[in-house]
Amino acid sequence: MARDLGTLIDGARSGRTRDIARLISLVEDGSPDVPELMRAVAPTVGTARVIGITGSPGVGKSTTTSAVITSLRARGERVGVLAVDPSSPFSGGALLGDRIRMQAHATDDGVFIRSMASRGHLGGLAATTPQALRVFEAAGFDVVLIETVGVGQSEVEVAAAADTTLVLLAPGMGDGIQAAKAGILEIGDVFVVNKADRDGADSTVRELRAMISLGQAAAGGWVPPVLKTVASTGQGIDGLVDAIDAHTAWLTESRQLEVRRLKRAQEEVEAIALGMLRRMLESGERLVDVAHLSADVAAGRNDAYTAASTLVADLLGGTD
Amino acid sequence: MARDLGTLIDGARSGRTRDIARLISLVEDGSPDVPELMRAVAPTVGTARVIGITGSPGVGKSTTTSAVITSLRARGERVGVLAVDPSSPFSGGALLGDRIRMQAHATDDGVFIRSMASRGHLGGLAATTPQALRVFEAAGFDVVLIETVGVGQSEVEVAAAADTTLVLLAPGMGDGIQAAKAGILEIGDVFVVNKADRDGADSTVRELRAMISLGQAAAGGWVPPVLKTVASTGQGIDGLVDAIDAHTAWLTESRQLEVRRLKRAQEEVEAIALGMLRRMLESGERLVDVAHLSADVAAGRNDAYTAASTLVADLLGGTD
Repeated sequence: MARDLGTLIDGARSGRTRDIARLISLVEDGSPDVPELMRAVAPTVGTARVIGITGSPGVGKSTTTSAVITSLRARGERVGVLAVDPSSPFSGGALLGDRIRMQAHATDDGVFIRSMASRGHLGGLAATTPQALRVFEAAGFDVVLIETVGVGQSEVEVAAAADTTLVLLAPGMGDGIQAAKAGILEIGDVFVVNKADRDGADSTVRELRAMISLGQAAAGGWVPPVLKTVASTGQGIDGLVDAIDAHTAWLTESRQLEVRRLKRAQEEVEAIALGMLRRMLESGERLVDVAHLSADVAAGRNDAYTAASTLVADLLGGTD
Repeated sequence: MARDLGTLIDGARSGRTRDIARLISLVEDGSPDVPELMRAVAPTVGTARVIGITGSPGVGKSTTTSAVITSLRARGERVGVLAVDPSSPFSGGALLGDRIRMQAHATDDGVFIRSMASRGHLGGLAATTPQALRVFEAAGFDVVLIETVGVGQSEVEVAAAADTTLVLLAPGMGDGIQAAKAGILEIGDVFVVNKADRDGADSTVRELRAMISLGQAAAGGWVPPVLKTVASTGQGIDGLVDAIDAHTAWLTESRQLEVRRLKRAQEEVEAIALGMLRRMLESGERLVDVAHLSADVAAGRNDAYTAASTLVADLLGGTD
């Protein structure tokens, strides 16, 4: 093991926030040290509860996360927060505003908040999120909150990394529920209508409950509760944390925790394997020249499937 | 070639909208006939101009698309429209509202509008969009408009499929520009501030121009114009179509069209090749048992990189 990496890991294990931050930067940057880091932290996998928090912009994700942190801290739990920003594949700056909003916990040693951008490296978000989680687990956190903006595929990937997924909504965003977000019903373990002091909160709750009961036949066992909160005043937050605890208990008793974590490990392994294969394809170290194949496709002399088959056959055939 | 597929392709070539629609359904569903379809339509690749239209919900994408269609029709061009909905990986219903809003063109033989969901099959959106494009090209359309909601990675993938990408904004959404969307500067060839009769249009234009000139050093050659439109009244639309024509002319003269299309073909070939490899990984026809490997990772006995390396080595080693 590289000496510096070993020092960082030891530092993270003893709770040095600076070393935790450095290790997560390695993950974020897709450093060549990541495989070695992952070997070192493998034994502590599964030692933290992982809670995903997602929702559209404006529903109060950061405020709710902050309130949940306060409630968990009052119960004596050490809390790591990972804010994942999938919104731009270009920029590296992630959820800066959120970090600023969470300064309430800046002086608390039992809370570590870190934002992370996905820079499109080996395995993407599907791989980097569990890697960052393992760093938090190695550092001894009891709970890790993963917060992400609810856009497209990313919220599904983040939900896949969590044991319990909270889906946040706000009153008066009913259009959003109906139109684009049928998918949230399938990823939410607990639904939260935040800003519940606003008009329309009860009808949003009713609408959600109706949609959940429609989908209930397929769900099997856990009925996702729909809670009301006003995160800015703390109203309903203890009840939310109780609901998370109830879901944790259900996961354990039903052995769904094991099932979910196994599925998660498999997805991660496959994502990394695909990333490795992608690098091989793009590395230009093949017998077949991708640029030449592609030029034939662009000119209509060949089709993309035949070209792809040639590429795959060449890769699988090795160098003989 | 399957007899039915041949009949559909002949029908599409002679402009039968029902056959075009059926072929796009094959692409959308990831039908086993797609490779054969792609072989058949390969010769007409590159015969249409491809224009991408993207922007956040509420900026008026459908209204603008509709107005652009009217302007292109007045110039005698046959127009195909592909509305790509990446917003939900679960639901198959794509942009239904948009189809309804475009009924103005329902009786025009020179316009064909089709929405398409990406159902996560071989190669994803990065593969299905160019496949649908090829069907439009085989059917003899002069221009294909690809409309997509600007969320996350999907708009980048759609921009990658287009020769010219229009990025739509509306006044008073300046937060969005600054915060999440630094990436749009890199994909836009023409910027459109729609709903320009509203307050704040000029400041949105100024803000965009400033951001574009900041990024200009890297762009080389084409300076993306920032136009104002009121699509609902048609104001500014002819100017927009002129700007698209100017970009087409620049692409051709600078040979950037060739460069972009070659890059596009290469990305498509690689996306399909990766899809093939993914299927192999997930098919369970390997010597190594993925479930077993993953169980070790979930239990902390192994790490995901080592497991993925085993999987890849096994795949590349074949069946010996």
